[in-house]
Amino acid sequence: MGGVIDGCPAGLELSEADIQNWLDRRKPGQSRLTTQRRESDTVQILSGVFEGKTTGTPIGFLIPNDDAKSKDYSHIKDSYRPSHADYTYQEKYGHRDYRGGGRSSARETACRVVGGAIAAKLLATKGIEVRAWVERVKDVQIERSFEVLPTVEQVDSNLVRCPDPDAATKMEALIEQMRKEGNTVGGAIRCVIEGVPVGLGQPVFGKLHAALGGAMLGINAVKAFEIGSGISGTYRTGAEENDLFTSKEGMISTLTNNSGGVQGGISNGQAISFSVAFKPVATLMRDQQSVDQKGEATTVKGKGRHDPCVLPRAVPIVEAMAALVLADHILIAAADRLK
Amino acid sequence: MGGVIDGCPAGLELSEADIQNWLDRRKPGQSRLTTQRRESDTVQILSGVFEGKTTGTPIGFLIPNDDAKSKDYSHIKDSYRPSHADYTYQEKYGHRDYRGGGRSSARETACRVVGGAIAAKLLATKGIEVRAWVERVKDVQIERSFEVLPTVEQVDSNLVRCPDPDAATKMEALIEQMRKEGNTVGGAIRCVIEGVPVGLGQPVFGKLHAALGGAMLGINAVKAFEIGSGISGTYRTGAEENDLFTSKEGMISTLTNNSGGVQGGISNGQAISFSVAFKPVATLMRDQQSVDQKGEATTVKGKGRHDPCVLPRAVPIVEAMAALVLADHILIAAADRLK
Amino acid sequence: MGGVIDGCPAGLELSEADIQNWLDRRKPGQSRLTTQRRESDTVQILSGVFEGKTTGTPIGFLIPNDDAKSKDYSHIKDSYRPSHADYTYQEKYGHRDYRGGGRSSARETACRVVGGAIAAKLLATKGIEVRAWVERVKDVQIERSFEVLPTVEQVDSNLVRCPDPDAATKMEALIEQMRKEGNTVGGAIRCVIEGVPVGLGQPVFGKLHAALGGAMLGINAVKAFEIGSGISGTYRTGAEENDLFTSKEGMISTLTNNSGGVQGGISNGQAISFSVAFKPVATLMRDQQSVDQKGEATTVKGKGRHDPCVLPRAVPIVEAMAALVLADHILIAAADRLK
Amino acid sequence: MGGVIDGCPAGLELSEADIQNWLDRRKPGQSRLTTQRRESDTVQILSGVFEGKTTGTPIGFLIPNDDAKSKDYSHIKDSYRPSHADYTYQEKYGHRDYRGGGRSSARETACRVVGGAIAAKLLATKGIEVRAWVERVKDVQIERSFEVLPTVEQVDSNLVRCPDPDAATKMEALIEQMRKEGNTVGGAIRCVIEGVPVGLGQPVFGKLHAALGGAMLGINAVKAFEIGSGISGTYRTGAEENDLFTSKEGMISTLTNNSGGVQGGISNGQAISFSVAFKPVATLMRDQQSVDQKGEATTVKGKGRHDPCVLPRAVPIVEAMAALVLADHILIAAADRLK
Repeated sequence: MGGVIDGCPAGLELSEADIQNWLDRRKPGQSRLTTQRRESDTVQILSGVFEGKTTGTPIGFLIPNDDAKSKDYSHIKDSYRPSHADYTYQEKYGHRDYRGGGRSSARETACRVVGGAIAAKLLATKGIEVRAWVERVKDVQIERSFEVLPTVEQVDSNLVRCPDPDAATKMEALIEQMRKEGNTVGGAIRCVIEGVPVGLGQPVFGKLHAALGGAMLGINAVKAFEIGSGISGTYRTGAEENDLFTSKEGMISTLTNNSGGVQGGISNGQAISFSVAFKPVATLMRDQQSVDQKGEATTVKGKGRHDPCVLPRAVPIVEAMAALVLADHILIAAADRLK
Repeated sequence: MGGVIDGCPAGLELSEADIQNWLDRRKPGQSRLTTQRRESDTVQILSGVFEGKTTGTPIGFLIPNDDAKSKDYSHIKDSYRPSHADYTYQEKYGHRDYRGGGRSSARETACRVVGGAIAAKLLATKGIEVRAWVERVKDVQIERSFEVLPTVEQVDSNLVRCPDPDAATKMEALIEQMRKEGNTVGGAIRCVIEGVPVGLGQPVFGKLHAALGGAMLGINAVKAFEIGSGISGTYRTGAEENDLFTSKEGMISTLTNNSGGVQGGISNGQAISFSVAFKPVATLMRDQQSVDQKGEATTVKGKGRHDPCVLPRAVPIVEAMAALVLADHILIAAADRLK
Repeated sequence: MGGVIDGCPAGLELSEADIQNWLDRRKPGQSRLTTQRRESDTVQILSGVFEGKTTGTPIGFLIPNDDAKSKDYSHIKDSYRPSHADYTYQEKYGHRDYRGGGRSSARETACRVVGGAIAAKLLATKGIEVRAWVERVKDVQIERSFEVLPTVEQVDSNLVRCPDPDAATKMEALIEQMRKEGNTVGGAIRCVIEGVPVGLGQPVFGKLHAALGGAMLGINAVKAFEIGSGISGTYRTGAEENDLFTSKEGMISTLTNNSGGVQGGISNGQAISFSVAFKPVATLMRDQQSVDQKGEATTVKGKGRHDPCVLPRAVPIVEAMAALVLADHILIAAADRLK
Repeated sequence: MGGVIDGCPAGLELSEADIQNWLDRRKPGQSRLTTQRRESDTVQILSGVFEGKTTGTPIGFLIPNDDAKSKDYSHIKDSYRPSHADYTYQEKYGHRDYRGGGRSSARETACRVVGGAIAAKLLATKGIEVRAWVERVKDVQIERSFEVLPTVEQVDSNLVRCPDPDAATKMEALIEQMRKEGNTVGGAIRCVIEGVPVGLGQPVFGKLHAALGGAMLGINAVKAFEIGSGISGTYRTGAEENDLFTSKEGMISTLTNNSGGVQGGISNGQAISFSVAFKPVATLMRDQQSVDQKGEATTVKGKGRHDPCVLPRAVPIVEAMAALVLADHILIAAADRLK
């Protein structure tokens, strides 16, 4: 597995270790809450970095597969797993690579994490920080709000990647129970971006939150995206929901942040905050009724090694995609205004 | 106001009347629930159509402004309206055209509706139908589900564009009350697309629901997007949420449609269903505290003619953007597979 | 006729007069060497400029057609003009708008000139100047070279737009003779860009001269593009052709400029110089043998008002496309390197 | 070295051998006329092909470097090679990877050849054939024309890849002489595409020959592009140059093909024919005067293993880029017209 990242400016300090930290948070087998399939997910930079700095030319990278043992896919070769892409691929392309889910496998998100790690290094040079965490697993959710952005250490202080220890304990128990039952759960990840300058995003096509939403909905298993107060804000009136402006020593800000840091498609300098909802993993460790390519009834066996809940491993993916979108807009914004 | 639509295939029957029907559903002043500002929004096709059919070359169109009387913008020239784009534009670009909201005005959505009307004609030739309606205004929502897709006539049978008469009556009363109080409300629009072939969308980048979500989040005032069972589905387990395959006379379908017609980013032949949440309109007919460009406290007056709720007029906009995304994918899909 | 220009930074001083100067150099009927068809080609800016400066949002413009008298196209309705796009359009799209050449008409280049005029204003703020002139009409060509870039006044000092008065006199005579014979000629335009910073262009995909070449080949009637010493340089050896580096007071430059200001796809700070070859106009004032849609032999009459040579009017089009490509790369280059 | 090819339709038969044939024609060390540096350039397909057919998902490939011995680049580390990209990269990006030319190395064209090999397989299923050959080395050129497209065997029957044996012998002698003198030569490659359907290309932006020209100018060392009769045609009058239509048994064609198979930016069913001019290789086996990064005078040594003439190895690169452009337009054209 590998890829090519184009458009990274020259002069950014970058090492494989910077990227590896991110991949390690996504890789399978990292805890008892995740799939026990093991991949070291070790990244090799092939081009675009010289003497520790990016050269401005495309960055090629490789993540060799090390779990090479031949697997048995006969149980899915001819049958369609429910809520997977087997059927749609078969119909779209006329044939499909049934091994390991092929291109629909969430394994390809490792490449997005590589891009996100580089983007985050770029953002750090501008004082921008991206942080995501699990805020809900099924119906267990964080009850408190955070005055100060949780640190990576706080997020990673438990296996669930939830910075509220009480909620984390309940979430962990729920995921463990699901695993025992061969069942799965989803939930929601909150992502907050601090230090964002005013003015990122384009007014008509290319609104910043539309770019973020499109990127998040491209992550496997994502079913919904909410910016700022999201759906809950649509249960309030305009008088309750509007973010009033205020100023302090000449600095303009808003009294509330229901907009989630984006107004009219453009960042307003407040923290960008959004929520991403993930459906329960479709692969169950249970037998499920299905059909084969001929439409004949069949049973899909529950076997293999799968995650009972993707959210802990999805935290760095959400951060990566957010960092990519922000970095892209930082680069675009250089051309906004005559200097 | 006008635009250019590129990429429409040659040979599509198209008249200005086809487009006008759509614009009339979006235009201001159409009922007592909308702004009383009047624009006839009459479209003129300038190029790309000859003898009643598209020529394959770009379609240029114009919607002349007819409400030309000079308006008074002095109340917003120097102050930032809460939850509007005034401040972000000023900071991004260094100056801004404060008249009528400039580019951030929802008026530009008329151009999207023109594109959508053409896209819908294209989809109709393939047997694909797009229908949207208001399913919730603030906390008043449709309590029933629809076995059969509501018709345009059913949707337009009341001023709210809600095909459930009981809910519509309550929604209408709520909007009227808001208008009297100088306040505003938001809510949610449901969009369903029927007749979609299996196989639209790209597997990794370019998932169909990501394209739909990005398009919807680009509509003014949209705060959230949910595909299929959306957030409610993330409160269930995988065993409850998975869509099991079945077949009838060789036709494969799913017993449920929690996926909303998209699996692995690709359409699966079931109806595509998604929900779009709109925040309450930011412009109130009340005074609001704010600041001016120097950061000094000021009051933004509530004056002018504005919608207490955008949802009735947003129904054709949601349909238009959905039609554009689908038509785009229909055209792309022609190259999916060797023929 | 009209268009929308997206991506122009905010804060650029811009008036309709800036653009009109460019359009006046392209418009038909400007001299006895061009077609006698008259169009005032008056531009109206519809959006994107406020109080004399660009706002950063898309710039919409309109050039109303004023030569509205109904023309007679019956002579080309059913027959294919030689070396025109009639046949290819008919076959590609199944039908075609035969009036005035439709989309294949060079009239649409007026829109490119509008974009180029704006791009040139942007380049001027960076000290970059684009200048084009006619260097050859058929086999009559400029015999001298220019130590100093010719001024617009020098280029426009004769009807041919050739800054060498001796060559211009011969070119003018040749074009007049062609007009009398109902025949046409082509030739070549030289374009030189001065003040270009080092570093524009991308190394692999997106080389600067490839972008320039693609843009020039998109102009109607262009058959060839040469950068720097072009084809003549390929008749020399590497030892003769290489541009040796030198330096003067720390400023690095090259002793020769066979590269035409671009090395490895990236500008090297020397003047960018390229040549664009135009075929003779395909519309003759003579009868030509052809076929109709059924393949039956027919005669295309030579009638109407056409240019015996497009080069004088193409000078601002070449400048416009060059300015657009350069401005685009100036904007992109802002993201090349970490600052 | 490697890459990812996106957009190839599913169902195309494809093996590594199909691609290897192409790479072998480009690889270094293949004859005494090319550089003696050796690379096996063996391609490995990593994804996108299953059971001998493309799956419709991105095709990843790798070409491992096998000439791994550490080279000595000290002679170019601090000095700028004339007419190379050293200086422009250094100035653009602030630092550069001086090893082997980095991204400016023509080595990356191997990746384009992989893409071209796949595109050519796709074109073959539509009956389209792309053939290129050397038509001129410096001032030695083919004197005859070809009634029938030369075969690959004819092209490859000599080391120069020129299907005219007499010219080939002289070209070979010239290249040998240049090698002995440590000097280099350029020339021109002709490319002809047969079997092209009418209607490829877009009328305004996206003309077919503009796409071909942009692609060719993106190949290292290319200085000029001519479509059809090219520059020589601009020395004739319209009456001489126009391609008159004729028909035979209902099939419309042209009596001449000065247009090179493209009219108004759209293919007209005649053979597409264009010429690509390459400058002499910039790396000489001689000492050349230059400057270092500080602007101090220095000498660039002529050492290493380099091509005295790139044209024989560039033939498959031209074919590859032509095939990629054509395949792209074949896929786009599927959406031209309502079916």
